[in-house]
Amino acid sequence: MSHSIWKKYSQMGKKVDQTTEYIHRIVDIKNEEIRSMIEDLTSGGKMLRPAFFLMFSEIGPKERPDSELIPLAASLELLHVATLIHDDVIDDSPMRRSKTTIHTRYGKRNAIYAGDYLFTVYFELASRYLPAQKYVLLNALSMKKILTGELDQMLINYNVNATAKMYFTEIAGKTAELFSLSTMMGAVVSGGDQKLINLSKNIGHDIGMSFQIIDDVLDFGSSTDTGKPNFEDLRNGVYSLPYILGLQDKNTELIEILSRNNLTDQEITQAAQIVVDQGYLDKTKEIALTYSNHALRRIDKLPDKENKKILSKVVKKLIDRIN
Amino acid sequence: MSHSIWKKYSQMGKKVDQTTEYIHRIVDIKNEEIRSMIEDLTSGGKMLRPAFFLMFSEIGPKERPDSELIPLAASLELLHVATLIHDDVIDDSPMRRSKTTIHTRYGKRNAIYAGDYLFTVYFELASRYLPAQKYVLLNALSMKKILTGELDQMLINYNVNATAKMYFTEIAGKTAELFSLSTMMGAVVSGGDQKLINLSKNIGHDIGMSFQIIDDVLDFGSSTDTGKPNFEDLRNGVYSLPYILGLQDKNTELIEILSRNNLTDQEITQAAQIVVDQGYLDKTKEIALTYSNHALRRIDKLPDKENKKILSKVVKKLIDRIN
Repeated sequence: MSHSIWKKYSQMGKKVDQTTEYIHRIVDIKNEEIRSMIEDLTSGGKMLRPAFFLMFSEIGPKERPDSELIPLAASLELLHVATLIHDDVIDDSPMRRSKTTIHTRYGKRNAIYAGDYLFTVYFELASRYLPAQKYVLLNALSMKKILTGELDQMLINYNVNATAKMYFTEIAGKTAELFSLSTMMGAVVSGGDQKLINLSKNIGHDIGMSFQIIDDVLDFGSSTDTGKPNFEDLRNGVYSLPYILGLQDKNTELIEILSRNNLTDQEITQAAQIVVDQGYLDKTKEIALTYSNHALRRIDKLPDKENKKILSKVVKKLIDRIN
Repeated sequence: MSHSIWKKYSQMGKKVDQTTEYIHRIVDIKNEEIRSMIEDLTSGGKMLRPAFFLMFSEIGPKERPDSELIPLAASLELLHVATLIHDDVIDDSPMRRSKTTIHTRYGKRNAIYAGDYLFTVYFELASRYLPAQKYVLLNALSMKKILTGELDQMLINYNVNATAKMYFTEIAGKTAELFSLSTMMGAVVSGGDQKLINLSKNIGHDIGMSFQIIDDVLDFGSSTDTGKPNFEDLRNGVYSLPYILGLQDKNTELIEILSRNNLTDQEITQAAQIVVDQGYLDKTKEIALTYSNHALRRIDKLPDKENKKILSKVVKKLIDRIN
């Protein structure tokens, strides 16, 4: 069953379900452990990237059969999950959103292999179903940008001199690139002209930037397990935007705490408290809202199709989580 | 400077050098550590996969400019190096051919990232330079087979019930697939017909199978550092063909030793000695020779081009290392 975010949009929910089923069908490896790991990771999520691709695949004049659209939608989720798995091994994160990570549960060996395998399936689906070789190349270049964004992240984590500019460059690659690839490829397969393709790409970028910053804010909210915030980002050494704004503002108290090694629970809570009290969290929310509004204004310029309304509503729903 | 194997073939040596230079030029990442790691790994090697691709790229009627051939040759080496890096992290091998492995020197984090990055560059070059999208798909499917071969390896390592059949399936993916991709893609870009493409693919397969088995035998030879064999395969839990032949033959002494945990140096030497004394190493050499002879007979059927002679000589040179 698809995530509750799609429950009002039954047609989209159905397609998202089809995408999940398709993924489970094509993950064809003997190793049961790795297969169930991949199935876990591709069940019950919001499937935003495939969903945005599917919405944009109806934005232009051309209609494509589901037999082409579903595999391409699946490929985008597989690329996402692959980077996520390797990212967790690279960061050595024990937790992701209050759940133990793949490599903690199944071992690094299986996690590296599972990520590699998903990269190849992604590559296979892209080269099998995209309508022209130049779009396969665009996918490869996107994948490179995503990886470069992840590398940039290493320059920010545990770095008290990190700046907002560094952060925006990082998330433009790490997060927004895959959203803009998804919306752009949707417009491509829908037969859109270059103007529509560019507009779609920019909408994806704005949504992706907003999405990542919303994620940063949600880390300050209550965990579903404990009812208290976990501050997992800081716990994993990830300097998200609220902290970066404080560091860039030369907040001496925050800099002093973050300069210490192996922060205790108390120090983590203290750092988070500074970020809240000094308004850096509110400022972060404003920036997320700005990106969402950018996206909404651009969505207005799309051709009047059924999905245009759904798109706006989903973007609003995402930003509502922090307002 | 290219490896000594190319010194008699100055034109091939030159192209191999160009491929290495090209690789160093396109590896474009800020992280100095990862860049120098990749440069290390792509310097001074035999560059067999790009060289075979380049030789076969002159086998058909069509001539392609170096500006297309060199990037494609580079892509094959990059795919090789990427799998090698991840393979070492997955196996947790401290050593590869008497040198410490990448992840031991630079850390797992950098090794995973470097492998991922090389996968994307490979994907980029394949989709930018291959003459048709269906060949990009063939590359993706090959990459999948290589990874499946690596996964199969996990079923063999530390498994005293491993059989020769399992071993041949494993190396057909892990090693031979990339050789057959290289020769096949060479024939493709040379404008060969389907018959020539298939013949080239089969030659690559035979060379790859022979190459891996030769490698297994070389592990029983003297290390350049110590003058004594290291038996690195067994030390890393890799059951290569000589051991597998012994296990399949139900050699009780060998099974007894390999069933123990954490083998000592003495036990490793003892196991290797059994393999030598009982003729399993000689049998392995014979199998390698059989594959080489298959390859040579098939090479005879290629059109009469300059490279046909070089090809035969290189295949003979590789097998001569164990005779």
